Amino acid sequence: MRIAITTGGGDAPGLNAVIRAAVLTAIDRGWHVLGIKKGYAGLLGDDEVIPLTRDQVRGIGHLGGTILRTTNRGNPFSYPVRQADGSFIKRDRSDELIENARNLGINAVISIGGDGSLAIAHRLAQKGLRVVGVPKTIDNDVSGTISTFGFDTAVNTAMEAIDKLHTTAESHDRVIVMEVMGRHSGFIALHSGVAGAAHAILIPEIPYDLAKVCDAIMAREKRGRFFDVVVVAEGAYPSGGEESVIGESMPGQARRVGGVAESLARQIQEKTGKECRSLVLGHLQRGGMPTGYDRLLATRFGGAAVQAVEDGKWGHMVALQSPDIVTLPIEEALLHTKRVDLGHDLMKTARRLGISFGD
Amino acid sequence: MRIAITTGGGDAPGLNAVIRAAVLTAIDRGWHVLGIKKGYAGLLGDDEVIPLTRDQVRGIGHLGGTILRTTNRGNPFSYPVRQADGSFIKRDRSDELIENARNLGINAVISIGGDGSLAIAHRLAQKGLRVVGVPKTIDNDVSGTISTFGFDTAVNTAMEAIDKLHTTAESHDRVIVMEVMGRHSGFIALHSGVAGAAHAILIPEIPYDLAKVCDAIMAREKRGRFFDVVVVAEGAYPSGGEESVIGESMPGQARRVGGVAESLARQIQEKTGKECRSLVLGHLQRGGMPTGYDRLLATRFGGAAVQAVEDGKWGHMVALQSPDIVTLPIEEALLHTKRVDLGHDLMKTARRLGISFGD
Amino acid sequence: MRIAITTGGGDAPGLNAVIRAAVLTAIDRGWHVLGIKKGYAGLLGDDEVIPLTRDQVRGIGHLGGTILRTTNRGNPFSYPVRQADGSFIKRDRSDELIENARNLGINAVISIGGDGSLAIAHRLAQKGLRVVGVPKTIDNDVSGTISTFGFDTAVNTAMEAIDKLHTTAESHDRVIVMEVMGRHSGFIALHSGVAGAAHAILIPEIPYDLAKVCDAIMAREKRGRFFDVVVVAEGAYPSGGEESVIGESMPGQARRVGGVAESLARQIQEKTGKECRSLVLGHLQRGGMPTGYDRLLATRFGGAAVQAVEDGKWGHMVALQSPDIVTLPIEEALLHTKRVDLGHDLMKTARRLGISFGD
Amino acid sequence: MRIAITTGGGDAPGLNAVIRAAVLTAIDRGWHVLGIKKGYAGLLGDDEVIPLTRDQVRGIGHLGGTILRTTNRGNPFSYPVRQADGSFIKRDRSDELIENARNLGINAVISIGGDGSLAIAHRLAQKGLRVVGVPKTIDNDVSGTISTFGFDTAVNTAMEAIDKLHTTAESHDRVIVMEVMGRHSGFIALHSGVAGAAHAILIPEIPYDLAKVCDAIMAREKRGRFFDVVVVAEGAYPSGGEESVIGESMPGQARRVGGVAESLARQIQEKTGKECRSLVLGHLQRGGMPTGYDRLLATRFGGAAVQAVEDGKWGHMVALQSPDIVTLPIEEALLHTKRVDLGHDLMKTARRLGISFGD
Repeated sequence: MRIAITTGGGDAPGLNAVIRAAVLTAIDRGWHVLGIKKGYAGLLGDDEVIPLTRDQVRGIGHLGGTILRTTNRGNPFSYPVRQADGSFIKRDRSDELIENARNLGINAVISIGGDGSLAIAHRLAQKGLRVVGVPKTIDNDVSGTISTFGFDTAVNTAMEAIDKLHTTAESHDRVIVMEVMGRHSGFIALHSGVAGAAHAILIPEIPYDLAKVCDAIMAREKRGRFFDVVVVAEGAYPSGGEESVIGESMPGQARRVGGVAESLARQIQEKTGKECRSLVLGHLQRGGMPTGYDRLLATRFGGAAVQAVEDGKWGHMVALQSPDIVTLPIEEALLHTKRVDLGHDLMKTARRLGISFGD
Repeated sequence: MRIAITTGGGDAPGLNAVIRAAVLTAIDRGWHVLGIKKGYAGLLGDDEVIPLTRDQVRGIGHLGGTILRTTNRGNPFSYPVRQADGSFIKRDRSDELIENARNLGINAVISIGGDGSLAIAHRLAQKGLRVVGVPKTIDNDVSGTISTFGFDTAVNTAMEAIDKLHTTAESHDRVIVMEVMGRHSGFIALHSGVAGAAHAILIPEIPYDLAKVCDAIMAREKRGRFFDVVVVAEGAYPSGGEESVIGESMPGQARRVGGVAESLARQIQEKTGKECRSLVLGHLQRGGMPTGYDRLLATRFGGAAVQAVEDGKWGHMVALQSPDIVTLPIEEALLHTKRVDLGHDLMKTARRLGISFGD
Repeated sequence: MRIAITTGGGDAPGLNAVIRAAVLTAIDRGWHVLGIKKGYAGLLGDDEVIPLTRDQVRGIGHLGGTILRTTNRGNPFSYPVRQADGSFIKRDRSDELIENARNLGINAVISIGGDGSLAIAHRLAQKGLRVVGVPKTIDNDVSGTISTFGFDTAVNTAMEAIDKLHTTAESHDRVIVMEVMGRHSGFIALHSGVAGAAHAILIPEIPYDLAKVCDAIMAREKRGRFFDVVVVAEGAYPSGGEESVIGESMPGQARRVGGVAESLARQIQEKTGKECRSLVLGHLQRGGMPTGYDRLLATRFGGAAVQAVEDGKWGHMVALQSPDIVTLPIEEALLHTKRVDLGHDLMKTARRLGISFGD
Repeated sequence: MRIAITTGGGDAPGLNAVIRAAVLTAIDRGWHVLGIKKGYAGLLGDDEVIPLTRDQVRGIGHLGGTILRTTNRGNPFSYPVRQADGSFIKRDRSDELIENARNLGINAVISIGGDGSLAIAHRLAQKGLRVVGVPKTIDNDVSGTISTFGFDTAVNTAMEAIDKLHTTAESHDRVIVMEVMGRHSGFIALHSGVAGAAHAILIPEIPYDLAKVCDAIMAREKRGRFFDVVVVAEGAYPSGGEESVIGESMPGQARRVGGVAESLARQIQEKTGKECRSLVLGHLQRGGMPTGYDRLLATRFGGAAVQAVEDGKWGHMVALQSPDIVTLPIEEALLHTKRVDLGHDLMKTARRLGISFGD
């Protein structure tokens, strides 16, 4: 048995732990493992395919990033091909990919990636590639799984940032607006905001009314609380406004962070007269050593993906349905983006804690 | 409505977040909240009962410890009473407790504690006290709930310690044995050990064979890996040996940490000839700021406990059954200690990763 | 003896440790201590003056921020006074301040602040107020002292951010430009950049040539290193460009962060064709718990400031001249901004490590 | 030019940063660099000598441990040689070492180590080996240098542990005694204790009177403060007792940690009747990623050591005399152990803060 592993989409803490677990549990079965570098580029001549041995995955479980490197730009169904004049056109190179995999003796592929990568994996499976998926998203917006690795690390990174901003906001009587990731789903904002005791949390699931946010700030002022920390998801938008339509599921579309917080801070300053500052957490959320939760989940995903290969679960992905890891068809997970359940007990408690959602 | 909150047993990161959430969500309902200091001592004249206001729980959600203080020695059914000669005898003061609560106008009590405290809460409920429980255990050994706050923080603390020991063990070609909490259940050892890439993990659920642990160490040596990190739960014991019988459920019995690691290190050194060192993580696991996971879970528990009071769920405790917080009769949770499921995917993956469990 | 403490300028980790040490060592001498809230606002009727007791400074030594709150806008020599029409004019209220201090029985003032606050302290001392200064600057740009508290914390915060960006930059073959504080002095950029193994560091002391920065990036590419982390101080500017002239020493001028990194990332992307991202660390550098180094230095400064009061060192400030704390006239420290010594061994080693300074 | 690097003694955070800086700055000069594994074992046939290239030191600056591995048992003047019967005798193999170095074309050796390793380096230099020293000690007890790398990391590790113990001690009304490293010098205990707001600090420089420690604890109790954190250096001893005589300078004598705290906790419990717990921080102080301060100092030491080789400073070691790195004869540094200056401002301030030193 010879399997190959690939990582696609934005990086997330825990990728290396998945790779390590998949490699070691496959080697334990007597299999051979290859690593496809930079999404599928390694299979399309734009990068390498390397053997993944015990030595190569030693001591990587706690490291951020991915030893296979990754990309948002490697959709084999619409692959950028450089023309003679230096420009790029997109071409379907999926057949070539499958043939190259066959020529390398690859019996199965473990594709670790976000909704974009999983959609590609689904299509490749339909074309006959024996592929198993491992969901990866900082945003926790893949349905079918209670959580994904990288999310817990991102929440802790954001929460620690809020902890730091609390003291500086309070010392200066300031409003600080911090932008976190979450284009369509506000999980990072909600979890880090509640954990960090933010005063307002704005998420894509609840279009916000600027006046209500400012009311909450001024109500605190009346109670002698002169500072505020506002956490805003990058995809949050004002009611009456329009939701961002560009998703990560469009390969080639890099995520553009920032802008939301700065504009919101300016508006709040105008309306309340309070000194406002903004901060975009950006790529700090993707980096760093994974938390215990994420290392464990990633390790379990890696082990379960190899088990799924052994079980021939082609076109399936692994998922957490506590307390178990299960497999389910990739297309089920792609049916809809997981979003914050507005009736969940966390939302109810958050509201009773006095957190404003701008509605 | 006037409720009272008490914290009992060993402290755990997240206690203050439960208190904060319970107080704020109760005040939001227009209720009054009291805090009983030091277990039930505040209700028995040995400490205070204080009003818990918005001001008093401000900014405590991220702090370790408990503003109400706690104790392992305050079982009201067997309460230590000082005699004239300075010695102590145990007396049942539960009736007095219930009467004092009534005299203070307390309509309901939220008892946050481990299995010992929950057993007391159950008995008080049977005697008519309107009490709701919030499970608390570093060890994650309360059944009926997927996890308890404090556990994730303890796992991360232990994992970060393993991360540190890795480099020093490797630099010195040493075996380092680290002891973590877990008298009857090996969750902290298992989770921190897998996340931290330990080479052997010894838990109470699997009596270990010293020879097998040493075999694993020497097998690594043959592969040119001259160091090892062994994580051992305080309740681990050799096969043929006897399990520790003193549980936290016996109030008055403080947990005695240490000893296991030191003795194990000595035995491994004798058998393998390798330089061994030991470390007892001890109270570091109970302290510090809670992780995001624990702050959230504690906050949800606090909010849900007040909801359970509103719903009149006397004798029930809150519990996590992902993705929901539920309530269940305290006695159900007390039926058995939650232990590591040896057939769980995490165990299977851990074994395939090459981790020795000494069996 | 009755002394008063005030904190001015941007906040810095360690302020509370200075306050705690000053209060406790003064109380130990039998003195009384007052806290002036929000710069000098507490003495000018716009905020409070509070007694600082043992209880009030308990457990604050490890907290970020300042319990006295602070401001960039409270220069008593040019104090914003609200007019009937809502607009503000600036008035000299220094006489009023000195009189109010006398009326409160204040024998001496400890002023903790940056160059702006120290300049004010110097002028107040000239007018007869018995004042002792404690230098505070994140940027480490106060001369006469080897370092100031808050700087070490800021360096570690920035370094940890670089650590995180390393893995994500490497996984994606990206250039990430991170902006840190340092308007006139590049200490944070230099120290965090060398400690974090950045590939280029741009500081105000060395006007940079964009082409040289891009050359360094492309030279790495030729050696098979496809990613880069560039640390840029907010005050860095291109050679031929113009240095920023607005300093923190102008009270009322809040520091405007951001912009430098984004523009630099865009320019590098244009010139090298590499995918570039930017990040502004901003207020994260001011927040959070101080490091051991900063808690110690702040504690020593607090203790030494009270000693300076006892010694009648009016118009002096405390300073670190390793291994001792000394006092020196405030005006000496104000003579010039401390800047990176380009001939220092750290610079020489950094260059030999292959770090580009864009020159 | 061909130089070799060796690391000896207990490991310390920053060793890899020294190696990295020395290798890169030597390669920048066009030199070749070798790494001697495991002290001098690599030169005596018991381990390897490896080439150190740019690739080999890539990304190691922030890692704990040493890629060259280390040992306390490799004194070439008294080297353990295994006999036919399995026992060991000590032999002087220094001539062999020098000859092997010559045969490998090694022009100079950079020896990174503690007082034991530096003493060996001094003797080797006297025998004609061209050697430059880099001082390394967690304990900060090498004279001639303001500080050594690893110390700042150890202080922060210990301080963070104290932070954690504070909340658990306070919640339980306990005395917690924490033992840190420091056989002859109490720097780690003093710095972490003051930074962490410990209530008593016991160091080898001040023999302690148990009654005075207990008095301080009971005095706090009278003021309503029911908990205490006591930091004790491993080398602290009661007045009238005897100082430990075994130093790290005796190779082959591994440091035995623990015991001091446990015995002290038992004595305090007996005398005060308070619940006491102990904790030995042990090897956690040696592990982990170095702080910014230590990475910088280590990097500067590495760069300066290569400069010292270029300058032919044989028998010298690098040292920090702020703000500069200087070189001085190794024997000067060996003349006496650096100990806490009891008249230093830090001691004075610590006493005024109410910290008990047991005297």
